[in-house]
Amino acid sequence: MDTRSDEQQIRSLVADWMQATRVGDVDRVLDLMTEDVVFLVPGRAPMRKAEFAAIARAQASGTVPAMDGTSEIMEVQVLGDWAFMWTHLSVRATMPDGRRMARAGHTLTVLRKQDGKWRIARDANLLAPVSAPQPT
Amino acid sequence: MDTRSDEQQIRSLVADWMQATRVGDVDRVLDLMTEDVVFLVPGRAPMRKAEFAAIARAQASGTVPAMDGTSEIMEVQVLGDWAFMWTHLSVRATMPDGRRMARAGHTLTVLRKQDGKWRIARDANLLAPVSAPQPT
Repeated sequence: MDTRSDEQQIRSLVADWMQATRVGDVDRVLDLMTEDVVFLVPGRAPMRKAEFAAIARAQASGTVPAMDGTSEIMEVQVLGDWAFMWTHLSVRATMPDGRRMARAGHTLTVLRKQDGKWRIARDANLLAPVSAPQPT
Repeated sequence: MDTRSDEQQIRSLVADWMQATRVGDVDRVLDLMTEDVVFLVPGRAPMRKAEFAAIARAQASGTVPAMDGTSEIMEVQVLGDWAFMWTHLSVRATMPDGRRMARAGHTLTVLRKQDGKWRIARDANLLAPVSAPQPT
């Protein structure tokens, strides 16, 4: 039984997500999302858990760029066993040739509490290259 | 008292939004969002209601491109007086010189029921030019 508030648990989930991504712990990242999770990004089809897992494993094995980032939580609203969250995210990726790319922008995320544990259920990721005008 | 289900009322809100946008009825569009609404789009700062109103009035007066579009609702989940919705949106804009632009993509929206009426409260808009690979 987690005695922290729902908002504290959700903030901890975000920190866990960023840390697990940083160290390439794919199983841990996958455990932080629901089975029916949907990831929405501009210019491509929605991504489900199996596709996310394949990309994350390719990143962890070094065949696609590794990512690191920081997340600022702008808003969390808990609605019973659901919640939504707005964050500002900055991500840096290191390409295989050593070049570095930076992207930043906002996310809007729906979370769901299952078996007493918060997980990411729907995620809209609005990140754009930081060469574009920078969201504040 | 609206006797339709919450999901029916939300679907009606989306139809009203598209219709009011099509005919340039800015006051009607503004009445379909909460006072604290936040619009998130890639590559720019979050937009609040006052800024949305200014852009909508410029569109209605013909000084910026008018927009028309179609919306397909992929999912609605009602959580008491809140809800979230995932849609696929296609938008066409006609420029002052008559050129036409098309954008398409997904939206993730948080809605809130206030005084018995559903309104848009948070909106992440992932539309990209349709020259890019087309989300399905």
